[in-house]
Amino acid sequence: MLPWRVSRWAMQLSLQVACPPGALVAGKSGAGARSPSMLVPWPPSLRGSSSLPTGAPEVALTAERYPVQRLPFSEVTEEDLAAFEHMLPGRVITDPEVLAAVNVDWLRSVRGCSRVLLRPRTTEEVSRILRHCHQRNLAVSPQGGNTGMVGGSVPVFDEIILSTALMNRILSFHDVSGTLVCQAGCVLEQLGRHVEERGFIMPLDLGAKGSCHIGGNVATNAGGLRFLRYGSLRGTVLGLEVVLADGSVLSGLSSLRKDNTGYDLKQLFIGSEGTLGVVTAVSIACVPRPQAVNVAFLGLMPGHAGCPGFQEVLQTFRFCKAQLGEILSAFEFLDAECMQLVGRHLGLSCPVRGSPFYVLVETAGSSVAHDSEKLTAFLEQALSSGLLTDGTVATEQRRVQALWALRERITEALSRDGYVYKYDLSLPLEQLYHLVPDLRARLGPRARHVVGYGHLGDGNLHLNVTAEAYSAELCAALEPYVYEWTAARRGSVSAEHGLGFRKKDVIGYSKPPAALELMRQLKGLLDPKGILNPYKTLPTRA
Amino acid sequence: MLPWRVSRWAMQLSLQVACPPGALVAGKSGAGARSPSMLVPWPPSLRGSSSLPTGAPEVALTAERYPVQRLPFSEVTEEDLAAFEHMLPGRVITDPEVLAAVNVDWLRSVRGCSRVLLRPRTTEEVSRILRHCHQRNLAVSPQGGNTGMVGGSVPVFDEIILSTALMNRILSFHDVSGTLVCQAGCVLEQLGRHVEERGFIMPLDLGAKGSCHIGGNVATNAGGLRFLRYGSLRGTVLGLEVVLADGSVLSGLSSLRKDNTGYDLKQLFIGSEGTLGVVTAVSIACVPRPQAVNVAFLGLMPGHAGCPGFQEVLQTFRFCKAQLGEILSAFEFLDAECMQLVGRHLGLSCPVRGSPFYVLVETAGSSVAHDSEKLTAFLEQALSSGLLTDGTVATEQRRVQALWALRERITEALSRDGYVYKYDLSLPLEQLYHLVPDLRARLGPRARHVVGYGHLGDGNLHLNVTAEAYSAELCAALEPYVYEWTAARRGSVSAEHGLGFRKKDVIGYSKPPAALELMRQLKGLLDPKGILNPYKTLPTRA
Repeated sequence: MLPWRVSRWAMQLSLQVACPPGALVAGKSGAGARSPSMLVPWPPSLRGSSSLPTGAPEVALTAERYPVQRLPFSEVTEEDLAAFEHMLPGRVITDPEVLAAVNVDWLRSVRGCSRVLLRPRTTEEVSRILRHCHQRNLAVSPQGGNTGMVGGSVPVFDEIILSTALMNRILSFHDVSGTLVCQAGCVLEQLGRHVEERGFIMPLDLGAKGSCHIGGNVATNAGGLRFLRYGSLRGTVLGLEVVLADGSVLSGLSSLRKDNTGYDLKQLFIGSEGTLGVVTAVSIACVPRPQAVNVAFLGLMPGHAGCPGFQEVLQTFRFCKAQLGEILSAFEFLDAECMQLVGRHLGLSCPVRGSPFYVLVETAGSSVAHDSEKLTAFLEQALSSGLLTDGTVATEQRRVQALWALRERITEALSRDGYVYKYDLSLPLEQLYHLVPDLRARLGPRARHVVGYGHLGDGNLHLNVTAEAYSAELCAALEPYVYEWTAARRGSVSAEHGLGFRKKDVIGYSKPPAALELMRQLKGLLDPKGILNPYKTLPTRA
Repeated sequence: MLPWRVSRWAMQLSLQVACPPGALVAGKSGAGARSPSMLVPWPPSLRGSSSLPTGAPEVALTAERYPVQRLPFSEVTEEDLAAFEHMLPGRVITDPEVLAAVNVDWLRSVRGCSRVLLRPRTTEEVSRILRHCHQRNLAVSPQGGNTGMVGGSVPVFDEIILSTALMNRILSFHDVSGTLVCQAGCVLEQLGRHVEERGFIMPLDLGAKGSCHIGGNVATNAGGLRFLRYGSLRGTVLGLEVVLADGSVLSGLSSLRKDNTGYDLKQLFIGSEGTLGVVTAVSIACVPRPQAVNVAFLGLMPGHAGCPGFQEVLQTFRFCKAQLGEILSAFEFLDAECMQLVGRHLGLSCPVRGSPFYVLVETAGSSVAHDSEKLTAFLEQALSSGLLTDGTVATEQRRVQALWALRERITEALSRDGYVYKYDLSLPLEQLYHLVPDLRARLGPRARHVVGYGHLGDGNLHLNVTAEAYSAELCAALEPYVYEWTAARRGSVSAEHGLGFRKKDVIGYSKPPAALELMRQLKGLLDPKGILNPYKTLPTRA
């Protein structure tokens, strides 16, 4: 593909992806369309072994790899199983093969040894389960789509796995206000299809949408690809139904945009990773489906400053905000090494080459003509300012999806590259990428790849380091270095992934002791026996 | 003014308000410009007696009008005053004249009898004050701009008034991200000016902006006029610094858009009305200043359905959302009786007449030309559908402000009409207005006026009933009727005003007992002695 000329832009704004159909996405998963993404094997562990690298080693038991001690919870007895079977006939799973899958996170980084999986269908069943567990002092690990990044959704030891998979009913949708009320186990992508047919879209979107559950999204305060435009779940979630640790039900499935009657209790559960209560149903404000969607995939010119090309990314973002204004719906970036891995492991080829950075700019608006004009103005400005090497624009849905796949499937490509050390950082925009070259120099050949990508518009870097296998030595070179680097810049050591099991001990890099103490008090208030998702979110006491 | 014709619209989209300059706004307060609104006497009680109706009666002491008993807090002694004077030299106010003003809410509906006002400048001073009060079991009533609607910001008995008025420093502003960090006592309008000069606007706006403090906005989770576009403070507030009841400081002035490290503690304090902690500083995400703002003020055709004209309001809203999409920034409505009161008490004249309802539609976008085209398309559709009787459009700032004054100053007009029974309800859109005619029939001549207006786009009705003076009999005709009506429709009995003192006992109409119990537990956890804003938010135990 030849570099663009400004003159081409005016005529070719609705240019499709220039490579032939199918060329962008190869491999057995087919078209790799963004939606439906059922064809995209995410997370691999849920899609069968064909998605895993051949010869993938058995995942080490969490209890063996990490210095963690089982707390004095009861063990599940035959009487407990009989009680559960009475509550959930035929939905108490003890089959070792099924349990093997749900004991491991999809990143294959942690593994528990639970001996029972419960699959309730109703809030009342969840309530009965928790009442029993509370009385018996049995620990519970709630599990949605098991697509988390921090080992929060699988047991650490023998906690009972409480799956929301069968709680997948849509309860109501109001097609004027766009309010959706549904059970926690609804898969995000299926919800998206439901509301799209009615003129709306979900206010959040993420790579794992084909597997993740809305309850899990809420419990982890998922950010994702639409955060820039539609904001946080803390604003878009209108109400929750939650079962507390003792089995009592907190009903708050409000459909109101505004409600200032007392403390906003739902906020306690958003982002608390199942440690304060189990989300059983969600009321969420959907947003009108845009009439026009454009995606521009752009290669940035290598610059000469500290991080060659990154200043150009930032300047492109500034132009983008100024020219696209209210129609800007995503500004994602990835570095050249990400792009190589996506090509190598997934067979996706990139329509733009030879740049140190690539950005994906999406517009979503209500007028095809206006949005095209705005996008043209932005691209002309970026081109005439010498920021871009090359790029392509798509408006047709399939092409839009193909361009998005290059960004969305990076996680999957990384997981095929070996063991992945994952960091999800919030940092000041100006320094968002600086840690990546710093780490490349620091780690040298010990790392296969050090890559950076993420939601630039939200100040959110996904920093990933791959290696042949887990190594304590490499880990020690990374941690606490990455956390200290982040803390020194007042960043967050978990922007959107949460803390789960694997990050719980680093909370202190982003939160002061007084905050941590108050969090412990909240946990003690809501779950005095500590049975809900133990060993997660809050650090082990020294 | 003649009714529009579609053909006029295409040519006259940037039509100014048709009446001569100044005609819209009369009276001694001058131009009534929307911004700066320092000229608008809001709240009247802070502007001196000239804003009050002449002969306004003395406000009854809360302790006498309401069935409330003083809790066994200590009384302020000379030793306490000396200790405070040592902490805040010259800023311990015991002057009865000053205290008279800060003991009464601006609506003149409640009055406390505090004997001391403290005016700290720093978080450290607030911390020292609360540490002392906690040790001494002295109750504290935090006060920002004292512009609340529910008696939440003045003492009920002799609580110490802790004012944020001198905590008015802007701490930082980042002109790429738009993150503002400031002390709690900054006045919203002044913050608006600061960020507007730097290319941003505040994500919230409300009629009281000339007096209200950002800390109070956060503490009450203020909604206001930009909620439809920029959402809730729960999404736009990035961080808080809060002093807890025992004087300890919870530092969380993050500037990060995303941070999932543990429970989001700031959410506890947003909307908790000073009962869980005192907000001392705020980090908030401002939004880019729109390049183009249009306001259309429209008269609706009287229809024939249950509420004549209201179906037309709803249909206009539907067209608005479809045609204006992402540039729609406000959709406010008011009924004919509101308009009469604004004319009678404030001397404002309306450019549109003779309709049962009026709507104010605002667009805010990044392109003058595109926004005009979208607005034209909407107006043509609404006109050709026979929804509108008349209307006017403004783009020039002064005219925009004049049209906004018609909506923003309704509260003020009502306060001059006599005693006001105020209800702030969230209701399903379809039934948003039905309670107003229902109440007119129910109350008959006992009420001077029953009016409805508000943020239609957010499903938020401000229902106001005026009468010559407070009367227990009229109150009994209104309550619990209004609350039961609202609860039967699963609405909220306080959409955005909070509960404060006057609404605390009606929380049960919108929240179940389990939620209320958890709120009490949270209060007990964070403020075990109950010294922070007692008698507010949570109901008195039976």
